[in-house]
Amino acid sequence: MGEEKVAPKPDATTLVELPGFVMSAEEAEQAAAAAGVETVEDLLPLLVPSAMRLARAPISRFPVGAVGLGASGRVYAGVNLEFRGLPLSHSVHAEQFLVANAAAAGEPALRAVAVSHMPCGHCRQFLQEIRGASGIRIVVTSDAEDGCAPEWRTVASLLIRPFGPHDLLPTHVPLVLEPHDNPLGEPATAVANGFGNGDLETRLREAAEAAARAAHAPYSECPSGFAVADGEGRVYAGGCLESAAYNPTLGPVQTAIIAMVAAGGGSAGEVVAAALVEKEGASVAQESTARIFLATVAPHASFHVYNYRPSDA
Amino acid sequence: MGEEKVAPKPDATTLVELPGFVMSAEEAEQAAAAAGVETVEDLLPLLVPSAMRLARAPISRFPVGAVGLGASGRVYAGVNLEFRGLPLSHSVHAEQFLVANAAAAGEPALRAVAVSHMPCGHCRQFLQEIRGASGIRIVVTSDAEDGCAPEWRTVASLLIRPFGPHDLLPTHVPLVLEPHDNPLGEPATAVANGFGNGDLETRLREAAEAAARAAHAPYSECPSGFAVADGEGRVYAGGCLESAAYNPTLGPVQTAIIAMVAAGGGSAGEVVAAALVEKEGASVAQESTARIFLATVAPHASFHVYNYRPSDA
Ligand SMILES: [Zn+2]
Ligand SMILES: [Zn+2]
Repeated sequence: MGEEKVAPKPDATTLVELPGFVMSAEEAEQAAAAAGVETVEDLLPLLVPSAMRLARAPISRFPVGAVGLGASGRVYAGVNLEFRGLPLSHSVHAEQFLVANAAAAGEPALRAVAVSHMPCGHCRQFLQEIRGASGIRIVVTSDAEDGCAPEWRTVASLLIRPFGPHDLLPTHVPLVLEPHDNPLGEPATAVANGFGNGDLETRLREAAEAAARAAHAPYSECPSGFAVADGEGRVYAGGCLESAAYNPTLGPVQTAIIAMVAAGGGSAGEVVAAALVEKEGASVAQESTARIFLATVAPHASFHVYNYRPSDA
Repeated sequence: MGEEKVAPKPDATTLVELPGFVMSAEEAEQAAAAAGVETVEDLLPLLVPSAMRLARAPISRFPVGAVGLGASGRVYAGVNLEFRGLPLSHSVHAEQFLVANAAAAGEPALRAVAVSHMPCGHCRQFLQEIRGASGIRIVVTSDAEDGCAPEWRTVASLLIRPFGPHDLLPTHVPLVLEPHDNPLGEPATAVANGFGNGDLETRLREAAEAAARAAHAPYSECPSGFAVADGEGRVYAGGCLESAAYNPTLGPVQTAIIAMVAAGGGSAGEVVAAALVEKEGASVAQESTARIFLATVAPHASFHVYNYRPSDA
């Protein structure tokens, strides 16, 4: 620990509205100055109530918001997402949303996170996938409501003696927030050529393939990517982000929906078409789970699955 | 922490073989005496290598074993289970298996656990569902291999400032290992009468219903139970065990398979028939996920779903 600095307590006069799920370094600096705080780190707790209002928690009705500062100076928000009619394993926690949001933006490292509630063990574990996770600093704004001033803690102090990537992977293997280029091979079955760049099916497949190449799947070696389109033809995609502890893994469906929500693109129920890219015969396969997600949340969406096979096969 | 007692380091002369996934208090006392250790707590680490050999981890090939002592004096084992062809969220951790195993035996409290590897954040979170979890003592046998003597730690020290049931539930709500009797109502559609007690379909439905009544589902209020039969007509069942943090929840399919494995009843692939009991229109619904589990792991199994409706509806 050793971090004794006390975070400013949010009050009505200093709360700041998020302009969206990502703030540029300039926007963040300006917002900090306007709020009268010294640093962007001090701004993070002031943005948390605004993040909480973006949560989509129809099962728990327990909104959680997280706001993090990257090494680039950009600020990322995350909220919890829940999906009615599916097991709770489909849920996304605010801290996971934040990490997936930062990863999608190419953020190289996370410095500090303010979150509305004490991170659960699942999230403390998920954060281990970031190299140097132990040094990420966390402040919990609800601590103030409990009568004690919120205090910055390190992830290391929140999960002592962690089980993580260091237990399973050589150090040269890229972790979350580091560049990935997974070999996928080619589609195992012929893929119809699109009717030009604007063809939605082609755009979905290409987005899902790019997401699968960028996915974090060092444990199963089964990278997967999912892409969704809304009614306006906008495409959002995400790849799986695996956890050394398996279950805290974010599936590709979840990261694609995170990308859609983060871009202001509506809710999962507005998906009209989707595509999945994964390896043929994958030992960790997403297809059937993606199908039940769509059948439950966006039952009218069209769906194509592309199984890829190593090029040398 | 404050727990400085050093656990005996397992060596070849003192390792003890598990007779199964549950040892009676008498068996445990006798095994401790035979191994030359003072207490059953000291016996737990000596049983861990034997537990690890029961793990079923075809994806990670990373076997994990856990052995715990209940307030009754009984000893429970747990191992990790992984299922090829499904997302990693279907995996069961050794600590979760142990808790489900103890819950199924009516164990009122867990005192101490020895586990082969440092518990992940997901498991530290899952353990929060036990009342008084903070005081459960844990020793990690792989600590010895790292050159330092394994040390007993409390769950409280492994998950400081936890998020848990106390954040969401009134204290009178039963937690895991406490008796549950969830109101389910009656099957929403007519259930065919069986052909006597021996009728497998009837036995499966009754076992799944009993498991749903005993499930821990205080967060979603969607209790569910699953029952499976092997080729010998033996029936095993389990109910969902929810986590305050949602994702670490054990689904009813997982707890039923845990019951089957714990009873020495073979692997999930040997399931020939299954039944699910859950509420009609549940906001957390298990049916579609149970279907893909069976289709992937036991594709020839028959399956019946019983949706229950409140009696006053
Ligand atoms: Zn969490
Ligand atoms: Zn675990």
